[in-house]
Amino acid sequence: MKTAIYPGSFDPLTNGHIDILEKTCKLFDQIIVAVVHNMSKQALFTLKEREDLILASTRHLDNIAVESFKGLLANYVKKKQACAIIRGLRTVADFEYEMHMAMINKKLYPHADTIFVMSDSNNLSISSSVVKEVAFLGGQINELVPDTVKKALDAKCNAVKKRE
Amino acid sequence: MKTAIYPGSFDPLTNGHIDILEKTCKLFDQIIVAVVHNMSKQALFTLKEREDLILASTRHLDNIAVESFKGLLANYVKKKQACAIIRGLRTVADFEYEMHMAMINKKLYPHADTIFVMSDSNNLSISSSVVKEVAFLGGQINELVPDTVKKALDAKCNAVKKRE
Amino acid sequence: MKTAIYPGSFDPLTNGHIDILEKTCKLFDQIIVAVVHNMSKQALFTLKEREDLILASTRHLDNIAVESFKGLLANYVKKKQACAIIRGLRTVADFEYEMHMAMINKKLYPHADTIFVMSDSNNLSISSSVVKEVAFLGGQINELVPDTVKKALDAKCNAVKKRE
Amino acid sequence: MKTAIYPGSFDPLTNGHIDILEKTCKLFDQIIVAVVHNMSKQALFTLKEREDLILASTRHLDNIAVESFKGLLANYVKKKQACAIIRGLRTVADFEYEMHMAMINKKLYPHADTIFVMSDSNNLSISSSVVKEVAFLGGQINELVPDTVKKALDAKCNAVKKRE
Amino acid sequence: MKTAIYPGSFDPLTNGHIDILEKTCKLFDQIIVAVVHNMSKQALFTLKEREDLILASTRHLDNIAVESFKGLLANYVKKKQACAIIRGLRTVADFEYEMHMAMINKKLYPHADTIFVMSDSNNLSISSSVVKEVAFLGGQINELVPDTVKKALDAKCNAVKKRE
Amino acid sequence: MKTAIYPGSFDPLTNGHIDILEKTCKLFDQIIVAVVHNMSKQALFTLKEREDLILASTRHLDNIAVESFKGLLANYVKKKQACAIIRGLRTVADFEYEMHMAMINKKLYPHADTIFVMSDSNNLSISSSVVKEVAFLGGQINELVPDTVKKALDAKCNAVKKRE
Repeated sequence: MKTAIYPGSFDPLTNGHIDILEKTCKLFDQIIVAVVHNMSKQALFTLKEREDLILASTRHLDNIAVESFKGLLANYVKKKQACAIIRGLRTVADFEYEMHMAMINKKLYPHADTIFVMSDSNNLSISSSVVKEVAFLGGQINELVPDTVKKALDAKCNAVKKRE
Repeated sequence: MKTAIYPGSFDPLTNGHIDILEKTCKLFDQIIVAVVHNMSKQALFTLKEREDLILASTRHLDNIAVESFKGLLANYVKKKQACAIIRGLRTVADFEYEMHMAMINKKLYPHADTIFVMSDSNNLSISSSVVKEVAFLGGQINELVPDTVKKALDAKCNAVKKRE
Repeated sequence: MKTAIYPGSFDPLTNGHIDILEKTCKLFDQIIVAVVHNMSKQALFTLKEREDLILASTRHLDNIAVESFKGLLANYVKKKQACAIIRGLRTVADFEYEMHMAMINKKLYPHADTIFVMSDSNNLSISSSVVKEVAFLGGQINELVPDTVKKALDAKCNAVKKRE
Repeated sequence: MKTAIYPGSFDPLTNGHIDILEKTCKLFDQIIVAVVHNMSKQALFTLKEREDLILASTRHLDNIAVESFKGLLANYVKKKQACAIIRGLRTVADFEYEMHMAMINKKLYPHADTIFVMSDSNNLSISSSVVKEVAFLGGQINELVPDTVKKALDAKCNAVKKRE
Repeated sequence: MKTAIYPGSFDPLTNGHIDILEKTCKLFDQIIVAVVHNMSKQALFTLKEREDLILASTRHLDNIAVESFKGLLANYVKKKQACAIIRGLRTVADFEYEMHMAMINKKLYPHADTIFVMSDSNNLSISSSVVKEVAFLGGQINELVPDTVKKALDAKCNAVKKRE
Repeated sequence: MKTAIYPGSFDPLTNGHIDILEKTCKLFDQIIVAVVHNMSKQALFTLKEREDLILASTRHLDNIAVESFKGLLANYVKKKQACAIIRGLRTVADFEYEMHMAMINKKLYPHADTIFVMSDSNNLSISSSVVKEVAFLGGQINELVPDTVKKALDAKCNAVKKRE
């Protein structure tokens, strides 16, 4: 069975991520969307919330599993016996960072390679941080995230505003 | 059966190309290395020579086929019922060109996506044109191309020098 | 009266160019689309054909004039008493080239500045050369150029094929 | 009346910003320099100080207004009935970020477009953060900021040093 | 005597830094590796530890001195009467940042210029921050740093884990 | 004696090249400006003319020699026993090309390294090809090239115009 890992923060999942999954799910038997448990980076959504939003938004794809992981990506890829790491590319800045991470990961675990997919032009300017910024400033995010994520973000924004 | 197309000029095949093939052949049932028949670009090796060099240099990989094609890549991908186009990425300049070609190809044939793989750091500076230039100026190309290609290039260089 | 010059080869006009014109025509009293008469670059369409295609495709915008010019852009801008040069930006490679041309033009004629507009994401991968390549290889260009240009390109392709 | 918005942190205004204003003020009837009220980013100068420094340093340009705003830029642009957003470009990294912000802003408010101007070569390496760093480390900033800003920065530096 | 300054955080020294030193030490009579004392950036190793690790790892090069400095680099270069600043380049992002810093430093002290050296392809993806991240997540760093640094990093990691 | 090679086409020498030489001549005992004899690239000036223009324009620097060479740069560097290759960097596109050439040259001759210097901001947009284009279109090139080169270019332009 050919398994690929799609690692990321997914804080939260955007239409850009779904685009990558729709493009790659037909290439592998299984894709594990792997939410990074990164203690040094403050997240808006909890690990559990992020996993639930991914599950709810990828029901139309039937070979997607969702997990979270801690520690070195290369070790996780090895544990899952995956043959590939999937990453999206949107910008030149992405490209350089990802090229170096791919080289480092190859040194750490030589049995899997990183493959890259580019976002559709419509999704090119979408990132989790842009989505959060627009939502908190009161802008429309309908075209940027799936409906479930939109509702969850609205709830977070309202909670924050009440507190202020 | 999952087929991927790896299109290019391969004039001639380099260690960079072999790196890409070794990384992707385990992801697909079959990879067709598709040599572009480009009439407007003057090639050093004939289509037949390029195909033979690819065949001779990829014997250690058992799911590789070699063909040549004319016309629109999207039409060829459709004809072969392939699910993916494979491209290597070495530089930011590559990245931008390839991003745009991937978008155009997606518009022309939406059923296949382009996936990108990065060359190993050792192969990062190798391209067919650099290899030809170094060879014609009398430099060592042992680390840049497979042995069969080295011999073929040496023969071309000697033929050119005799003519001068 | 505030006049801006939009210079280029327009061989042929694409939806990307129209996007730039639609975005900038509301900022100036007049925009002159200035077709460069470049003797060293082989064009597919004649100067006259390119001007006619621009006129036919910009009838919905009412402050657009079309001309061709020879020689230094800075001199032409001065002659027209224009206050701005308009350029589209699609890629990092565009950006660097254009930044340097803007600096050179500023030195040659300090009374006009270059302003840049970015293409819509849908038009990001469209360029005249990609359009010509796709058309000649038999691909669909409906979404890439205005209808008049499509017809003109089809005619050129048929003429070339008959000759072969 | 054609109004353009020039948004930014301006913490503090530099010669690079003045260069952009001098280049664009002749293209519009009015330019509103709009200081972003960003609560998550710690500023050296207060909103009021930044507005005052901009006013004091742009007296030679007569169609410049200075304001501050909170919330989504697209909403502010709409409220002001502006037809354009002005942004300076200095680097490839700027370019990519700005391209994506321009796309997002176009989705949020389609009636204004972002236009870009490049800094003069002399101002290419000037940014507010570089200016602050050089000033705090005791370097000369005469060529980097207007005289009023230099005085204000010197005062801030002295205040900080006394406290230490 | 021709002295060059190689400034940086060196938190900690990597094989990439050693590569730069081995390439440049033959060009100058003396190279001072100058550890920046940056109060706003939290470092893993103390200034003293960083200096000691550099000394221990560059014993095979005989014209290397190690110091730390505070304040403006340009002032330090002047004080040392150095004729050059040495910087490594790995990425396009590095390049842009460094180009601007070189221009600023040239304005601040015109008697020294910045020269750039590129890392070997093997060291291209190594940076101090990547090394620290891999080490803390339990990955192998043997190929990324000298042996002394590896031991020091292991000790830091163990200390952190005990505290948790 | 420390010798560095500064290779290039120098067709013709610009103020950008002189900037690089002024910055590096104090670092080496001797710099050989090495004009590449490239048969596949059509030059405006003959090898002899290019060498003479370099000599005439660098009289204020006393450790500069001028030569031309044929064949592989790495072989020429070896023959001259040089310890460094000097290259100027102006753009991201330059940077990527030069990074790969530096890696290839290091493989071909490991005893010399390529060092890079950045042009002053005033010279950033100057290249030999821009200079030739501006001159032929009748623009002012006083700030772009030394006086001797200006005269030689004017003569070439007049000769071409007479022929037409």
